[in-house]
Amino acid sequence: MTYRILDASALQNWLVERPDLSGRLGSPAAEWTIREVSDGNLNTVFLISGPAGALCCKQALPHVRVAPDWPMPLERALYESRYMRAVAPAVTGLMPELFAYDADLFLLVMECLTEHEVLRSALIADRARPGFSTVIGSYVARTVQATGWVSQPFETGAHLLEQFSGNTALTRITVDLILTDPYRVCDRNPEPETGLRDDVKALQNDQVLHRAVGRLQDRFLTARQALLHGDLHTGSIMLDDGDVRVIDGEFATMGPIGFDCGLYLGNLALHLCAAPHKAAALRAEMLAFWQSFSTEMRSSLRNGTGDQWTLSGSDMRQELIEVFLSEVLHDTAGFCGLEMIRRTVGFAQVADYGLCHTEEARLLARQKALQIGRTLIVEGASLRSFNALLSLMGL
Amino acid sequence: MTYRILDASALQNWLVERPDLSGRLGSPAAEWTIREVSDGNLNTVFLISGPAGALCCKQALPHVRVAPDWPMPLERALYESRYMRAVAPAVTGLMPELFAYDADLFLLVMECLTEHEVLRSALIADRARPGFSTVIGSYVARTVQATGWVSQPFETGAHLLEQFSGNTALTRITVDLILTDPYRVCDRNPEPETGLRDDVKALQNDQVLHRAVGRLQDRFLTARQALLHGDLHTGSIMLDDGDVRVIDGEFATMGPIGFDCGLYLGNLALHLCAAPHKAAALRAEMLAFWQSFSTEMRSSLRNGTGDQWTLSGSDMRQELIEVFLSEVLHDTAGFCGLEMIRRTVGFAQVADYGLCHTEEARLLARQKALQIGRTLIVEGASLRSFNALLSLMGL
Repeated sequence: MTYRILDASALQNWLVERPDLSGRLGSPAAEWTIREVSDGNLNTVFLISGPAGALCCKQALPHVRVAPDWPMPLERALYESRYMRAVAPAVTGLMPELFAYDADLFLLVMECLTEHEVLRSALIADRARPGFSTVIGSYVARTVQATGWVSQPFETGAHLLEQFSGNTALTRITVDLILTDPYRVCDRNPEPETGLRDDVKALQNDQVLHRAVGRLQDRFLTARQALLHGDLHTGSIMLDDGDVRVIDGEFATMGPIGFDCGLYLGNLALHLCAAPHKAAALRAEMLAFWQSFSTEMRSSLRNGTGDQWTLSGSDMRQELIEVFLSEVLHDTAGFCGLEMIRRTVGFAQVADYGLCHTEEARLLARQKALQIGRTLIVEGASLRSFNALLSLMGL
Repeated sequence: MTYRILDASALQNWLVERPDLSGRLGSPAAEWTIREVSDGNLNTVFLISGPAGALCCKQALPHVRVAPDWPMPLERALYESRYMRAVAPAVTGLMPELFAYDADLFLLVMECLTEHEVLRSALIADRARPGFSTVIGSYVARTVQATGWVSQPFETGAHLLEQFSGNTALTRITVDLILTDPYRVCDRNPEPETGLRDDVKALQNDQVLHRAVGRLQDRFLTARQALLHGDLHTGSIMLDDGDVRVIDGEFATMGPIGFDCGLYLGNLALHLCAAPHKAAALRAEMLAFWQSFSTEMRSSLRNGTGDQWTLSGSDMRQELIEVFLSEVLHDTAGFCGLEMIRRTVGFAQVADYGLCHTEEARLLARQKALQIGRTLIVEGASLRSFNALLSLMGL
């Protein structure tokens, strides 16, 4: 069957032909309800409920959903399905289950998270149950263990490089929107609000910053440490009380571990700039993230039987592990800073700034994010502890 | 046509059917002469001469040529052909021309270098014309320019990662023979000569060394900076007076630039240990290599229009370039040390030691190589200049 964009009724007909999937919904199909909930920038998403259960169907469009004149190869759905299959065994219960991937329709059929809410919305509405960051820290550490060179024979990483390096359409978005555009004049950048114009111009003319961004471009492109989610912001996480799930792995690529960490922390820090009264709670989340991430990493690095560090037994690895984690911390700080800046002045900004009640408060929040972001990018590579990173955020 | 091992007459019959190739030899085919010159560890090589010209045919065997019970996938010939095609435009005249690759026979048909001699043999016989290292430095710099992230859009590197990461059979050899085996007890390691036993045992119990090797394993597996030749020793280079050619790219993989540099310099350093009276000439070759490599690298890094460093114009890149080259120097020192050690006590040792006239001289030469290798591995990451690297070699 060739590719076509599915609307609700076409999707229903397609599901009827797939007993392995429609069985999960239950019959009769006439009782199914289908609801479009497309929310991200790129794809259409439908939730289907039936007498026996529910499904989530996500289909790639040949263009950016919110910008139809921006073409976007359909293959991103293939990479998302590959990502889910590559990490699923390591993160059972922390990701929706993938039931099927249709290679012709570029369609993923997954577990439906009906009760769950996007973390970003939950944060904005102030109803996220504390401790979610512990789960995310664990999620990142487990994906690294499943895909990195210390834990796995090198053939695993080589195979992942082969499988994911073709995901260039979405990596191009990362290279442009995160690593380049905010620091240059570029049509994709939205016109900044009046009070922010000087700040934006400063970003475009700051040679010290540009050098530091250049080093991070180098890290992102060359440091192929593990399979990244690649877009781990608070909009890629859903929760229902204590149940936390990571979704939307279509940006997956082999890259520096600190990229996933930095994007996640950067989005908490953006929320902090918009809602400074929540500093204590957000500091606790950031600490919880790093604590669970670094604890699980230390354990998996100590016990890894991959080709990297084979010569040093588990009792001899302490120094290697600490150097390794300190490099991850440096990358984390830098990518956190990049995310804060691009989500403040770049193409895809965050809704968190809506929490600011006045235009002046919003301007101050944005300026604060730019200032923290710049500091993290420029000084991140000399940080000696996670607490020092929090200090740079004023926490 | 399915795969079969070609002998001289089967190869002649195959060439007759390929007018594009047999035309280069000239007719009649009865006047062709075919000579087997298999010399490396892995493949069969035939040179065919005819009235109009000559060809070199290299076929992969399903096992290591010199160890028939060690199976080896045929696909290495595919990766060699991909390597030649990927870098050929950048290194015209520095590599034999590839005329054809037969995917069924895993057979490469190339320009025949009849007058050329392998650099290692030329060095041993003391008839290599000085200055060849200038060409090799330029060769490495040009392959980096053609395949690295500063010079090329990131999609180029991503495509190379996709194309070469599957070359795991040969990369496994690198991971085992260079990065692991010499530092552990392992069946592949040959029995050391009596006088060297303590030195070999010391390598296996040296925790400081093992940590440093662990860092280099990390660099080799994760720092995907450019497309490497992957086996750039003096047996992979042929010369005829001033005409210098690089051959045998079947180990090609994306990796740290210092790996190619280090293997090359390591083989010159091994020759130095075996023939210390040639110190001045070898020092000059090493300096010439680094001078031509770093000069061309500085120029290509300054003018690169790839995705890395886009924000810093060519006049703003000096600091980025110097940090970049100093990291390449550190890697170079480390991989140079690894090569010296593995070619002295590992599975595939070098003929250069045959230059030592007495058993005692050979033992001293090997011990010197092990000592220099260890120093380079342990101290390489703190070197501040290429001269400091030469000092560690006693030059």
